Amino acid sequence: MSKQVAVILSGCGVFDGAEINEVVLTLLRLEQQGAQYQCFAPDMAQHHVVNHITGEEMSETRNVLVEAARICRGAIKDVRELDVTAFDALILPGGFGVAKNLSDFAFKGAECRVQADVLAALKAFAAAGKPVGLECIAPALAAKVFGAGVVCTIGNDADTAAAVEASGAQHQACVVSDIVEDAQCKLVTTPAYMLAGSILEASQGINKLVDRVLALA
Amino acid sequence: MSKQVAVILSGCGVFDGAEINEVVLTLLRLEQQGAQYQCFAPDMAQHHVVNHITGEEMSETRNVLVEAARICRGAIKDVRELDVTAFDALILPGGFGVAKNLSDFAFKGAECRVQADVLAALKAFAAAGKPVGLECIAPALAAKVFGAGVVCTIGNDADTAAAVEASGAQHQACVVSDIVEDAQCKLVTTPAYMLAGSILEASQGINKLVDRVLALA
Repeated sequence: MSKQVAVILSGCGVFDGAEINEVVLTLLRLEQQGAQYQCFAPDMAQHHVVNHITGEEMSETRNVLVEAARICRGAIKDVRELDVTAFDALILPGGFGVAKNLSDFAFKGAECRVQADVLAALKAFAAAGKPVGLECIAPALAAKVFGAGVVCTIGNDADTAAAVEASGAQHQACVVSDIVEDAQCKLVTTPAYMLAGSILEASQGINKLVDRVLALA
Repeated sequence: MSKQVAVILSGCGVFDGAEINEVVLTLLRLEQQGAQYQCFAPDMAQHHVVNHITGEEMSETRNVLVEAARICRGAIKDVRELDVTAFDALILPGGFGVAKNLSDFAFKGAECRVQADVLAALKAFAAAGKPVGLECIAPALAAKVFGAGVVCTIGNDADTAAAVEASGAQHQACVVSDIVEDAQCKLVTTPAYMLAGSILEASQGINKLVDRVLALA
């Protein structure tokens, strides 16, 4: 039986949504390892829309679920339909969408709140003892899911690490090619584009994360 | 010296832009082979914007260059800045954007016109004897670049193959894991998501295409 993995996306594009390379690398690795997956996203307005050339905000509104569908060719569901009993593991790729749409970590740091349906999904996997993989900035949500003391990495950025620590998590510095595991929580994290300078670099840690999450499932 | 490859994108999302998986797989393979790349796209309005869940047209306007920038984290240039002398090869990933933005093949078939700046870039590489790789539906433009008799593949779809033949190209059926090469034109083509049922399947032909384009460069 193939392992079934839920993947939650936060839009389409690193500056206002999901980091596209991280998503594709994650799905590719799942396929390479014989796992099956279903993508999900919240059906809600994006925090904002960013011109990815200039970095400037655009006067548009876009929907997280509709935009995330671009990455997975339309094969996506509302995260409210995510039934933990149908899956063996959960993975969140990163991108600013995690910190702007799935939570408000980009604005409130350690005091952030996680979008209710996404938090419910994460907590359901944690409660079921099923492994969770968080990439890039997504480990910033770890303490909200697993509680104080959970061990994770966002790479080595001092300010972000301090905010993660302030949220209650224990931050461990980690290189882009590696992962950090909290064995008790079955949480696996990797820096990905918090540190990656290329798709190839990002793939190293992401491949390890996917492999470890599947091994724990 | 690393080989330098220009990659032309047609937006962001299979139904109205570039096929995202094809783009990421192409760039990843270029990195794996030690090549360097620069992404380009035309600075023009998309033909339309499609909701990738419902398939319905949305009442929005988006810019091909601005949207394509999402895939490559902003590292993109206007295709008018593409100087053939700075590159060893050119690759076009697919997606409906090639047939709706970079050309009107989706609407006019064999009678299609290719966007002027994209056509100029393609013809410059052909004239310089530098290899060109076309993925997915992009080989539909081959006859407009290389003239009648050029050999290429779009997989095995009968109607699309007939339109490609009507444009003057010689179509060869090809499986998703393989490539077709016109040695005289230095043109390499692969079906990618014209046939692929997964990212892993698409990667097989795309990896071969990138490898062969680099070998010819």
